[in-house]
Amino acid sequence: MQRGRGISRRALLAGAGTAAATIAAGAAALPRSKVKAWDGSTDVLVAGSGAAGVSAALAARAAGARVTLIEALPKLGGSSAMSGGVVYAGGGTELQRALRVEDSVEQMFAFLSRAGAPHPPLDKLQRYCEDSVAHFDWLLDQGVRYTEKFTAAKGLPMGDESLYFSGTEQAWPARELATPAPRGHVPGLQGMNGGRHLMEVLLQRARGAGVTLRTRVAAERLVVEDDGRIAGLLVRDNDQPRALRVRRGLVLACGGFIHNRAMLQRYAPQLFDCSVPWGNAGDMGAGINMGIAVGAAALRMHQGFAIAPVYPPEHVLSGIVVNASAQRFISEESYHGVLGDAIAYHQGGRAWLITDKGADFGMHQDNFVMAGEANTIGDLAVNIGFPSGALQHTVAYYNRFAETGEDPLFRKSAPYLRPLLGAPYRAWDLSVDRAFFPAHTFGGLHTTVDGQVLDSFGDAIPGLFAAGRTTAGLPMAPYIASGLSVGDCTYFGRRAGRAVAAHPVGAA
Amino acid sequence: MQRGRGISRRALLAGAGTAAATIAAGAAALPRSKVKAWDGSTDVLVAGSGAAGVSAALAARAAGARVTLIEALPKLGGSSAMSGGVVYAGGGTELQRALRVEDSVEQMFAFLSRAGAPHPPLDKLQRYCEDSVAHFDWLLDQGVRYTEKFTAAKGLPMGDESLYFSGTEQAWPARELATPAPRGHVPGLQGMNGGRHLMEVLLQRARGAGVTLRTRVAAERLVVEDDGRIAGLLVRDNDQPRALRVRRGLVLACGGFIHNRAMLQRYAPQLFDCSVPWGNAGDMGAGINMGIAVGAAALRMHQGFAIAPVYPPEHVLSGIVVNASAQRFISEESYHGVLGDAIAYHQGGRAWLITDKGADFGMHQDNFVMAGEANTIGDLAVNIGFPSGALQHTVAYYNRFAETGEDPLFRKSAPYLRPLLGAPYRAWDLSVDRAFFPAHTFGGLHTTVDGQVLDSFGDAIPGLFAAGRTTAGLPMAPYIASGLSVGDCTYFGRRAGRAVAAHPVGAA
Repeated sequence: MQRGRGISRRALLAGAGTAAATIAAGAAALPRSKVKAWDGSTDVLVAGSGAAGVSAALAARAAGARVTLIEALPKLGGSSAMSGGVVYAGGGTELQRALRVEDSVEQMFAFLSRAGAPHPPLDKLQRYCEDSVAHFDWLLDQGVRYTEKFTAAKGLPMGDESLYFSGTEQAWPARELATPAPRGHVPGLQGMNGGRHLMEVLLQRARGAGVTLRTRVAAERLVVEDDGRIAGLLVRDNDQPRALRVRRGLVLACGGFIHNRAMLQRYAPQLFDCSVPWGNAGDMGAGINMGIAVGAAALRMHQGFAIAPVYPPEHVLSGIVVNASAQRFISEESYHGVLGDAIAYHQGGRAWLITDKGADFGMHQDNFVMAGEANTIGDLAVNIGFPSGALQHTVAYYNRFAETGEDPLFRKSAPYLRPLLGAPYRAWDLSVDRAFFPAHTFGGLHTTVDGQVLDSFGDAIPGLFAAGRTTAGLPMAPYIASGLSVGDCTYFGRRAGRAVAAHPVGAA
Repeated sequence: MQRGRGISRRALLAGAGTAAATIAAGAAALPRSKVKAWDGSTDVLVAGSGAAGVSAALAARAAGARVTLIEALPKLGGSSAMSGGVVYAGGGTELQRALRVEDSVEQMFAFLSRAGAPHPPLDKLQRYCEDSVAHFDWLLDQGVRYTEKFTAAKGLPMGDESLYFSGTEQAWPARELATPAPRGHVPGLQGMNGGRHLMEVLLQRARGAGVTLRTRVAAERLVVEDDGRIAGLLVRDNDQPRALRVRRGLVLACGGFIHNRAMLQRYAPQLFDCSVPWGNAGDMGAGINMGIAVGAAALRMHQGFAIAPVYPPEHVLSGIVVNASAQRFISEESYHGVLGDAIAYHQGGRAWLITDKGADFGMHQDNFVMAGEANTIGDLAVNIGFPSGALQHTVAYYNRFAETGEDPLFRKSAPYLRPLLGAPYRAWDLSVDRAFFPAHTFGGLHTTVDGQVLDSFGDAIPGLFAAGRTTAGLPMAPYIASGLSVGDCTYFGRRAGRAVAAHPVGAA
């Protein structure tokens, strides 16, 4: 219910205002007539300082608007600064060309439109792919640092390589739906520092461009004109209620809601059960809820990124992943977002990785939770409680074909395909609530390709824009590649910024 | 976008009003100030004449309110009149006791809270179970006709029996989570006429009680006071725009959105792909969209009832149901809503029923779509295109245990459990887009147990109530029993009617 964080209806009705912002009565959104005076005014107000908000602010500023960006927390950067900073880009980016990687807009679009969610929003996908080369150029222009190095290793590079296969392109069935190409573009830094670097660069640019950046200013409620246009925003500015007027429009870029337990249970029960809510502390759903309060439609609210902790090390993908019926259900080499989706949404949250004496966990063994160990597959099955004979049947069938280099069910690639060799056999728990299973949300406001927030009848709410995980964007279930979220934030953030700057000025 | 059906923003801005209802400018919802005059007024306005709307109208009228009920279509009854008319009831109803069926509120609650969706709304479930005996008494009091006959057959009785196992109570794992009891209460009529009878009785009661019933009056937009309270409704009354004032409140009971293809693709792509949109022509999402337009939260918008056509005849459940990997994934005797959910949402929409020479389809063979036929399982597998050896492995494992009366994976009951005997082997297509696969929607407005519509911050929108498939109610994915939808409509419809009648009168 979020009462702890926001202005309650009761408080609004009681008149919580200061001298400057006198709020007489109100609700989930406030009519303009109830705001007696504004505490400030700007052309464009952006709520949220992650990649979406800062990209929107930069684009709006570049288009000549006065821009103020507010951040609820003391520190700028949002969840983007915690992320790997990967941007999914392709079609022949400068980095791809420097590394002689072949790619095309068509193959990128084919992958994104076919390998993931059913009936994806083709308008957003098409523009994202067509503009991908130019969008990566923009990231270079901002000063984001990439190295001309490629790595074939699975998972976010911990070295300084900047290009890798960040998704499920090479796993079956994706590799039959589109020609694989590495499209994960990540800042070239040691360790998982790409997101921090990306946000430092973009924030520095925003400061340099004259965007007003304010921390500890939390967006709480929208103010609406009689005709439905967004007039401004009620905020809590260092704990003081304030009313900010927007002349052209507002961009909600407040992230998702992985830390709002009540919302999560209501909208996305599968994510509620994942062990590690993964996102910045600001991911409380404020932007989504403010948008819904003024009539916005919200899409895909149940979906999210549920990450199965199956690699690194990729060596263990020579094992098999099974469900509670001891059946395999997916190619083990699938991107961990695809595997995570399968476990969290389609296997009741439960799965196990079965390995043999050949498995080498290297330095990563502590990341795995052992559920059982035995000298035979039969004993291991009893140990875990699999149905009689089921694991034995699964392993016999798998081994029989793996010996000849085949995987009829899921066509696992040669590097990972071999029969299970012998004891000790181990089962590693990949269940959402027992393993390290990070999750964040995908659902959000329904927007046009230019970030205009749409109501339930398909019309734009005048003056209201949104971007990033506050919207229903490119990240959909199953999440098929790292970089689609930050890529969506930066690309559609910029589009929203351009559009809001061009939005007609409202009444004073 | 629904532009074809409703008032467009453009039309509202152009002033679509008649002399009586002059609409100067507007959007997804209309401010009260834009309505120059009302064309009519009532204490309680109910939109929709299905079980939810009529139950709400009856309860509001019984509480002393003047009630008008409007229906967009020329005929009253909604989707409820097309349904089987089953109400899920238990805990020792008069009919259960007459038939010496043992049941308890606790076991009914255990089944409903454990056998279906994760994290269900326990508040609604609890009240529904606790009041179930009284609710069935109310149905009897209205004059709905039940016979004191029980049938053990699966599926809606085509005879005049009134009590049956309408859900997945007896299938594994449900039968281990709660003691099974027959709780499907269906009017005692030959053929599938329960819904028609139920609605005839309730509508006659409503007429007799003095509820004003109007057809061809379509709810289009809500009218909202400055403080957020619902002031009234814009309707299209026999094609004329009219504005109706509500003194106490409005109940949206306009059904779901299975016939709104654009909404379906956006919110529920899995249902979009099902072959038979199943519901009354009015299921266009109007109530849900009007609620969203005034700030209501909507839940479970992706979910629905997807019905796998696997029985009748139940005799064929001695076959096995497999996915594209030729694996079994569920007990074949599961309620067809549970199996349908598994296919539509968790198996990519594809499944097959494999039968042998022992299968007897009786008069029902025309209901099935044959995908292949062969003299060996291996040939059948090639015929369908299953992965090498997979179907053979599945059948070998299944047969091995079935011979001893066991089904380790899904514990299929004895009446359906036997090895596959011999040729001809046949595969029947259970895919959502090839088989007869009816579907309707479950997602809708977030409401309290009394039908008050909640906004995104958890507060009630004053004067706005909803019931039935316009709300997120008891029907959740997986749908575990017939009768939960009509049961939810009648029970929570009545609660909403009582609550709206007691709602304070708004300003004139």
